[in-house]
Amino acid sequence: MKAWMIDALGRHRLRLGDVEQPEPRPREVLVRVANVSLNYRDLLVLEGTMGSGRAFPFVPGSDLAGTVVACGEGTSRFRPGDRVMSTYVPGWIDGRQLGSAANPNGMTLGGPLPGVLAEFVSLPEDWLVGAPGSLSDAEASTLPIAGVTAWFSLIEEGGLRAGQTVLVQGTGGVALFGIQIAKAHGARVIVTSSDDGKLARAKALGADIGIRRDGDWVKALIEATDGHGADHVLEIAGGSNLGKSVEAAAVGGQIAVIGIIEGLDLAAPAFPLLLKQVVVRGIFVAPRRAAEDFVRALDAINLKPVIDRRYPLAALPEALAHLERGPFGKIVIDVAE
Amino acid sequence: MKAWMIDALGRHRLRLGDVEQPEPRPREVLVRVANVSLNYRDLLVLEGTMGSGRAFPFVPGSDLAGTVVACGEGTSRFRPGDRVMSTYVPGWIDGRQLGSAANPNGMTLGGPLPGVLAEFVSLPEDWLVGAPGSLSDAEASTLPIAGVTAWFSLIEEGGLRAGQTVLVQGTGGVALFGIQIAKAHGARVIVTSSDDGKLARAKALGADIGIRRDGDWVKALIEATDGHGADHVLEIAGGSNLGKSVEAAAVGGQIAVIGIIEGLDLAAPAFPLLLKQVVVRGIFVAPRRAAEDFVRALDAINLKPVIDRRYPLAALPEALAHLERGPFGKIVIDVAE
Amino acid sequence: MKAWMIDALGRHRLRLGDVEQPEPRPREVLVRVANVSLNYRDLLVLEGTMGSGRAFPFVPGSDLAGTVVACGEGTSRFRPGDRVMSTYVPGWIDGRQLGSAANPNGMTLGGPLPGVLAEFVSLPEDWLVGAPGSLSDAEASTLPIAGVTAWFSLIEEGGLRAGQTVLVQGTGGVALFGIQIAKAHGARVIVTSSDDGKLARAKALGADIGIRRDGDWVKALIEATDGHGADHVLEIAGGSNLGKSVEAAAVGGQIAVIGIIEGLDLAAPAFPLLLKQVVVRGIFVAPRRAAEDFVRALDAINLKPVIDRRYPLAALPEALAHLERGPFGKIVIDVAE
Amino acid sequence: MKAWMIDALGRHRLRLGDVEQPEPRPREVLVRVANVSLNYRDLLVLEGTMGSGRAFPFVPGSDLAGTVVACGEGTSRFRPGDRVMSTYVPGWIDGRQLGSAANPNGMTLGGPLPGVLAEFVSLPEDWLVGAPGSLSDAEASTLPIAGVTAWFSLIEEGGLRAGQTVLVQGTGGVALFGIQIAKAHGARVIVTSSDDGKLARAKALGADIGIRRDGDWVKALIEATDGHGADHVLEIAGGSNLGKSVEAAAVGGQIAVIGIIEGLDLAAPAFPLLLKQVVVRGIFVAPRRAAEDFVRALDAINLKPVIDRRYPLAALPEALAHLERGPFGKIVIDVAE
Repeated sequence: MKAWMIDALGRHRLRLGDVEQPEPRPREVLVRVANVSLNYRDLLVLEGTMGSGRAFPFVPGSDLAGTVVACGEGTSRFRPGDRVMSTYVPGWIDGRQLGSAANPNGMTLGGPLPGVLAEFVSLPEDWLVGAPGSLSDAEASTLPIAGVTAWFSLIEEGGLRAGQTVLVQGTGGVALFGIQIAKAHGARVIVTSSDDGKLARAKALGADIGIRRDGDWVKALIEATDGHGADHVLEIAGGSNLGKSVEAAAVGGQIAVIGIIEGLDLAAPAFPLLLKQVVVRGIFVAPRRAAEDFVRALDAINLKPVIDRRYPLAALPEALAHLERGPFGKIVIDVAE
Repeated sequence: MKAWMIDALGRHRLRLGDVEQPEPRPREVLVRVANVSLNYRDLLVLEGTMGSGRAFPFVPGSDLAGTVVACGEGTSRFRPGDRVMSTYVPGWIDGRQLGSAANPNGMTLGGPLPGVLAEFVSLPEDWLVGAPGSLSDAEASTLPIAGVTAWFSLIEEGGLRAGQTVLVQGTGGVALFGIQIAKAHGARVIVTSSDDGKLARAKALGADIGIRRDGDWVKALIEATDGHGADHVLEIAGGSNLGKSVEAAAVGGQIAVIGIIEGLDLAAPAFPLLLKQVVVRGIFVAPRRAAEDFVRALDAINLKPVIDRRYPLAALPEALAHLERGPFGKIVIDVAE
Repeated sequence: MKAWMIDALGRHRLRLGDVEQPEPRPREVLVRVANVSLNYRDLLVLEGTMGSGRAFPFVPGSDLAGTVVACGEGTSRFRPGDRVMSTYVPGWIDGRQLGSAANPNGMTLGGPLPGVLAEFVSLPEDWLVGAPGSLSDAEASTLPIAGVTAWFSLIEEGGLRAGQTVLVQGTGGVALFGIQIAKAHGARVIVTSSDDGKLARAKALGADIGIRRDGDWVKALIEATDGHGADHVLEIAGGSNLGKSVEAAAVGGQIAVIGIIEGLDLAAPAFPLLLKQVVVRGIFVAPRRAAEDFVRALDAINLKPVIDRRYPLAALPEALAHLERGPFGKIVIDVAE
Repeated sequence: MKAWMIDALGRHRLRLGDVEQPEPRPREVLVRVANVSLNYRDLLVLEGTMGSGRAFPFVPGSDLAGTVVACGEGTSRFRPGDRVMSTYVPGWIDGRQLGSAANPNGMTLGGPLPGVLAEFVSLPEDWLVGAPGSLSDAEASTLPIAGVTAWFSLIEEGGLRAGQTVLVQGTGGVALFGIQIAKAHGARVIVTSSDDGKLARAKALGADIGIRRDGDWVKALIEATDGHGADHVLEIAGGSNLGKSVEAAAVGGQIAVIGIIEGLDLAAPAFPLLLKQVVVRGIFVAPRRAAEDFVRALDAINLKPVIDRRYPLAALPEALAHLERGPFGKIVIDVAE
């Protein structure tokens, strides 16, 4: 079967190789991969910024949707023919995240654990979730990281309610899920971007207000909310942008720190954090149970993930280049013909 | 009556003046002040770093304990003879803090609102709480900021439970309350200081482990907890120390940002925040209801606040100098003879 | 001015009298009442089942919308011309409900406190909330009890999320708000009624599934949810119906006990409560802050309350008779011409 | 090896038989049982009131402490020599309980699943928790049901804080753990019993107030708390006693329904539940993660479980008779010599 892989760090080393199709071991199921969606972290993993500890040859990719084709001994959750999607943090079923201060758990699919950009993968059945019946495989492949992260941040950890204001930064995968999920719960959504065209598309998707990122967006947001501020922030940029998010937050506002695009070092002023009792929360996707609840929600609210463009398996390099330029929503690889 | 005041910014301008004794207006009660405890913010308010908007002559001081001596028209919560203590954020009774993103609420007693370093003060009855029967006035005067902050951070917002590990930074007023409150709930307490004598005294007060702040205290903490890390952190230093607190935090650890001694700009690395799902929470003392619950707790658990030293009213400058050097616990002014 | 009143217990004693128009005392505002919506409790108060402690002549009615026409001394929250609505539990601003085990707080507007079925009322400004700009006065008058109860139960206490299943019992005021609020958050709604016509109208309003109350509705509900059960229940019937709600609840399901139509004595089987970790919560409307958040939500989601019928002021007896027969939604009195 | 078993329902059918020692299958560990503690449910399971679905011959008993003596293939959590204790609801690791409305999960150790009153048991390693280093095997054997239930109810679900009032009904296993756990968190504890001697022993254990159950204990409790009522109730009796617990609850009080000694049908008045916003919560022990946190707490707070009496393995019938009469704390069987 075909699989993308690298034999050493470096995106330029990616090669589409032929490898033996895996067999499901006990408690594993064999999945024929239909689609893989890309995430910004795939770029970081290929270059070594994330995913340290991987073994070579290394297959990248974290998010799959596909169909179970065989079940190993001792499996019970799935049967051949079931449509499934992956989860990002294997073994985190529900409740508290794994790991400790001495050993924070970063064992995730697609780096350092082997990834899914292959025609077949065999995974422990506990690492999979049934795909939503209301979505295609391409759409379902966008959920495991981007969709679940927006859901867990805003809804489960944030407790979002109708009438609250949500600030979504940018128009990438998590951001667009944030817009859609927040609107489906009756919130008012403000999106920031440095591209007028993307702001217009975000508004067409449901965002109430678009603000240019390159101006004083904090002031604009506070004015647009009659002084109230943002009850929820999806902090996708990171770095010192966190400080602006703290300034923009409402009293009791909650900031979900998700992204690191602007840097690995967060910075923020103390006074507004204190006076407004702002909460800043590190988010590392979510436990499997949250993905299952999200799937149930998707089927109920008819939310369709936004795919900017689909690429054939052979065009992974072009797809990654598109990802790097900043898509509007998700980039998806068609693994199966 | 006597009152400390400044006519312009600057601690050196403090003068003990004679002013007319106030009369209680409608809904106010007149309090004979027995004791006032000092807080690090008093230094900042006198110099202008905090409390902007004050009117001169300005009376400093936020924390009082005393006795109601007269009740204005329309009062019902207190009667003459009742022992009371102040609350720091007037009007915040319960639930969500006041203010908005456009106007964060910093209207606090002792700057910008007039303070309590006077023999009598007349305050709206809603701004007061009954003092705990188990404490003296000097002890009760230490509660409104330091005690209530530690209580609200660890117990109400943090949900502290027996068996969890609490990191308390330093040995000032909030820190020692943190040790005592955490121990009263069965937690394991780690305290950091750069003074071996203070570490020894903190352990005598109940702390389980003392760690030198001037070494690699994060590593020492992680080892001392068998890798687990700190479930709760009272972040009293602020600035870039927050980053160390994030490193020291357990999975799901909660950091209450309270202090700004090391700087107004918080900084922390993103990866451990994300991987461990750490929560960072701005704390601005607490609503009045929390002070009332804390008073009930104090009477139940027999916790005695630690007063490093008491000074007579005339010795406020010496008391402030002691505060600046870093006391072990609280500094209290004896206002009444 | 005109006001409805009784001089002794008994609905048949209602009379539309002429009384002096009130003047706003300090901290009060005078409100010209536009509309009053009726609640099932009005019937109980008039007969003495609820509201003990009232003074005669007693004016019934709890829910008003109207316009501020004059402001007493010391007011600051409203100005003449502001549109307002009442709150049901005066003095409960935010956080924990008032009262104690010895004295549970039942001091509510419209019994035992004087009610609002009058052309003008003067109320402490703290007892009022700004009415939503997106609703008419007649619509706004339906919010203080029925709307706020459904909001607080499902959203604030229940933490409702998209994809969850909500069981709404009946098609009265709280029930229809429950349907609308739940749908606005992406939930799946099941409604029960013994009237096929009302089930059809509830589905037209957004309910996903209608089930006849007179059959084995628990079994029907469990089947309709593929065995999952109801994540949230608005328990409007009370009495032994609670037992059926417990049987119908999902694992971790939450039941908000709101109504007492079927009896004052709740009964339920222990085993399903234990095995499914069901939570049963007494709901007594909500604090004012919740009403304010609900108003903000209403303006965001364009929810229009369902008014079955409006009656002129003089027709209160006919309106109460309609209420007793069981309306579809709310009954509203036009107080102003 | 020896094991107690029944071949058909009925406590009189218990026999101490000789059966083959089990071998650990994949993912299982073999445990040499040191002690088994008894629970009231053991009586119900033997008679058929609980545990339906069991296979005969059936070995009763849910709570074990012992030592791992062999590890099956694919195990990683334990090594031979590790001291362990059982968990009551196998497979419930963290977060939401298993099962659904159609199939509530009652698959518990000791009925319907085979129990642990045997010299050796082989169990999936996921069903076990490391025993606390500070407790003996006999003490550790009391934790899985009684200790964990009290912990989860008061601390995890209830969020108990110092200064709150806890009502513990009776002096059985869960009740005494409730007293000890509540005191370790600074609460004030009220215990009810119809036996003055047991009240005295409960007070010696830390309870602040003892009230006779056979008088008007609700009135006595309200007076003893100056009208406040109980913030937390361990509802161990069940049946119509729940109604008294609701009357005794404080505003916002939380009632954990645990026991069914007084009947399977819960009953309570609606008005106090509503006015005080009381929360009633079904408790079915807890997930494994809670047991692990409780073990950590035990090691921190030096809590020693109260064992009324220990019996040799052969004396199970006498031990069950003692249990039926109502012990003070736990009854423990010494399985190993």
